[in-house]
Amino acid sequence: LRKLFISLLFVNVFFCPLPLKAMDRASADVRCKEIAAKLLKNGLTEEYAYTLLERLSRIGPRLTGSAQAAAAVDHTLKEMKDLGLENIHLESVQVGHWERGDVEKAMLILSAWESLPLTVAAIGGSIATPAEGITAGVVEVRSFEELHDLGDKARGKVVFFNRPMDPSTLNTFGAYGSAVDQRIQGASEAAKAGGVAALVRSITTRLDNNPHTGMMIYESGVHEVPAACLSTIGAETLSQYLKKNPDFKIRLELNCRQLPPVISHNVIGDIAGHENPDEIIVLGGHLDSWDLGTGAHDDGAGCVQSLEALRLLKKLRLKPKRTIRAVMFMDEEFGGTGGKAYASNAKFRKGETHIAAIESDRGGFLPLGFRIGRNESDLQSFRKWESLFQSIGLYWLRPGGGGVDIGPLGTQGTLLISYIPDAQRYFDVHHSALDTLESVNPRELEMGAVAMALLAYLLSEEF
Amino acid sequence: LRKLFISLLFVNVFFCPLPLKAMDRASADVRCKEIAAKLLKNGLTEEYAYTLLERLSRIGPRLTGSAQAAAAVDHTLKEMKDLGLENIHLESVQVGHWERGDVEKAMLILSAWESLPLTVAAIGGSIATPAEGITAGVVEVRSFEELHDLGDKARGKVVFFNRPMDPSTLNTFGAYGSAVDQRIQGASEAAKAGGVAALVRSITTRLDNNPHTGMMIYESGVHEVPAACLSTIGAETLSQYLKKNPDFKIRLELNCRQLPPVISHNVIGDIAGHENPDEIIVLGGHLDSWDLGTGAHDDGAGCVQSLEALRLLKKLRLKPKRTIRAVMFMDEEFGGTGGKAYASNAKFRKGETHIAAIESDRGGFLPLGFRIGRNESDLQSFRKWESLFQSIGLYWLRPGGGGVDIGPLGTQGTLLISYIPDAQRYFDVHHSALDTLESVNPRELEMGAVAMALLAYLLSEEF
Repeated sequence: LRKLFISLLFVNVFFCPLPLKAMDRASADVRCKEIAAKLLKNGLTEEYAYTLLERLSRIGPRLTGSAQAAAAVDHTLKEMKDLGLENIHLESVQVGHWERGDVEKAMLILSAWESLPLTVAAIGGSIATPAEGITAGVVEVRSFEELHDLGDKARGKVVFFNRPMDPSTLNTFGAYGSAVDQRIQGASEAAKAGGVAALVRSITTRLDNNPHTGMMIYESGVHEVPAACLSTIGAETLSQYLKKNPDFKIRLELNCRQLPPVISHNVIGDIAGHENPDEIIVLGGHLDSWDLGTGAHDDGAGCVQSLEALRLLKKLRLKPKRTIRAVMFMDEEFGGTGGKAYASNAKFRKGETHIAAIESDRGGFLPLGFRIGRNESDLQSFRKWESLFQSIGLYWLRPGGGGVDIGPLGTQGTLLISYIPDAQRYFDVHHSALDTLESVNPRELEMGAVAMALLAYLLSEEF
Repeated sequence: LRKLFISLLFVNVFFCPLPLKAMDRASADVRCKEIAAKLLKNGLTEEYAYTLLERLSRIGPRLTGSAQAAAAVDHTLKEMKDLGLENIHLESVQVGHWERGDVEKAMLILSAWESLPLTVAAIGGSIATPAEGITAGVVEVRSFEELHDLGDKARGKVVFFNRPMDPSTLNTFGAYGSAVDQRIQGASEAAKAGGVAALVRSITTRLDNNPHTGMMIYESGVHEVPAACLSTIGAETLSQYLKKNPDFKIRLELNCRQLPPVISHNVIGDIAGHENPDEIIVLGGHLDSWDLGTGAHDDGAGCVQSLEALRLLKKLRLKPKRTIRAVMFMDEEFGGTGGKAYASNAKFRKGETHIAAIESDRGGFLPLGFRIGRNESDLQSFRKWESLFQSIGLYWLRPGGGGVDIGPLGTQGTLLISYIPDAQRYFDVHHSALDTLESVNPRELEMGAVAMALLAYLLSEEF
């Protein structure tokens, strides 16, 4: 009898298109709880997200436009086939193509016969220096205001932006956001002040010798000068030497370059909805990465969590009413062209409606919660699942969902959701050589995949 | 005027012994919020807990009874002096003294000319093998029941306990608790079945080549046989070979030994209460550690967090009404004699009352919350501070406080509190060579110290 009851319940939850009555509601809640427990148990036992990340990491760094980014597209197609996804396809995206080159040097010239190397990396998008390098004096500033106040004193100099990321707040993303202007606009601000190059302190609270790169933008109409990031140890060292002698010169050599745009791809695969296949729930991360590490946290984690979420749902033989789709976006790091392309194509995709999109792009750390929709009223209908999410290790649901890749879907009424892991350690590795597989914990990574799988299931069946 | 108001407020909160009125309550709440923010800001900026841990780690492993444990006592005394604590003193504790020795070998004998080394470590408290080692066949079991069911088949054999730690639950301490019987009682259970030694699979969900040691107990009246833990890779390898040929023999060599007990010490230092100095709030961790790593998480973290909490309170020039005391307990790992000694001496300490004791002994990971008291009614008066703790990164307050070191104080009516960080990564390193400084994140460690400082302050001023 009990078996009969359970199988009837199963039929009810999955095949009843009518609003659930109170009795059915209670049954559905039991069913959701069972599914959450099974997702967690399978996920933690198999830790398959980590296996996926291991394989992705073998390709190496996946800089937008690079051969490895193309290899990652092919690899992901194959992974999707192996996972038995449906409707697997590529979506073309024209992306920029910047190459780091093989010369990145900064030497502090102490005397005619002595110089001190500082660890630097070109900032993504920077032009090269002349082949013989740039040799110039240095002015150190902590802000654009301070630079402006210098008046003519930055003319002909390398402008050294040395405002540290604020360690004193728990909100590391906030602290990052408050420091990143130096990296993004530093070159153009330096040029406007007559500077010949920008050197930017890496945005991390760690004191080590790893430069943390990232994107920069040349302001239109402003003279372009090269820009490189210094490791935090490099920045401290330079600052100390400049205190001893403000006239020290630095020689900077970079041979990075911008190449013509290339055609790259978003990679897409579905578990097709069996009732409303045109109602789509997207799970996604971005396939491109920075090139100093292998982008294990940023955003290999989000990619493999999306794939693993679909694998877990298939493993449980759940047949969702709506289509649950994994999208590996291309080019989050150099302008978000993949996310834009997906959204603009989505509008024209044969009658598809994007119900919701969940983005994971904050590293593969311990899950904290989901940010869902714009405000509390968007979030309201999810509140009843708070204890369900707590049972799989999350602490909260909050408003404020979004992200570079899913953001463009927002204008179509898609509910935007961000998966939020803890970020106390994120900026230790972010955009640096430390962002490799070894910095990811298999359980923490998997817990995110489990949470995304559960939320996708609820969005498909219960929303 | 505003300054005057703030300084009056200060006086009010700190020097008013009467119950606070509603208006005063609101002012006190503002003051608590300010203090929480300052503790966090100072802590995260300075990350001094990590500096303390760095210095402690240089001593090396601090196995109970060892020369390094004694060095750690001296070192901690000096740290307390440098921090300007008062009433600094040592408390004698008689502790066991077991030494690992320098021979730990397990060879699976594949043929007369070929053998395969398996990575093992003696379990703490084990006797040695004879100098020539023990060479015997192996029986693999997953539980004591399975061993009993073997009847005579374990006679003369090495009993191999190979039940893995369950990876499928979020509660890693629970999973550890469900596997640890093999390590603690395995030797005696093996002996009762006629076995000549016990080999125990390390208690971790990671598959690697690090043995995880820990304590064992010989059941009184049962023949003593040696016991070692195998790395999880070693355990998997052995199991696979036994499937191919159940008659394979293993040779085990250990020269660990039990030495006469030695006198060691708890290390104690206070911020003396200026109003009720005899009312004590203890913050503590244990100074001894296992010897394969340097006990950075277990429990260097708890020790330095306790010291750092007091440093932060002093830094803010807070003068607590009650005495806030750091206790570095000796010998948590080999029987908890330090905790017992402290509690039994506490009873006779000239009129001291122990209001509360906070133990940190679950690693230096991301803070989750505090477990306070036995039940919800013990916790009730803390509920009003939930949002205050959330502001410094904690997620919850729950009942169920305790711990090996503070547990003995419980019989004296002391409120027992456990600091609870996330434990998803804890058993990756626990009791193994991986438990070193490098596995600790400075921010995560510091956040725990900040939380302990705030709770100690509230217990002193507001409770």
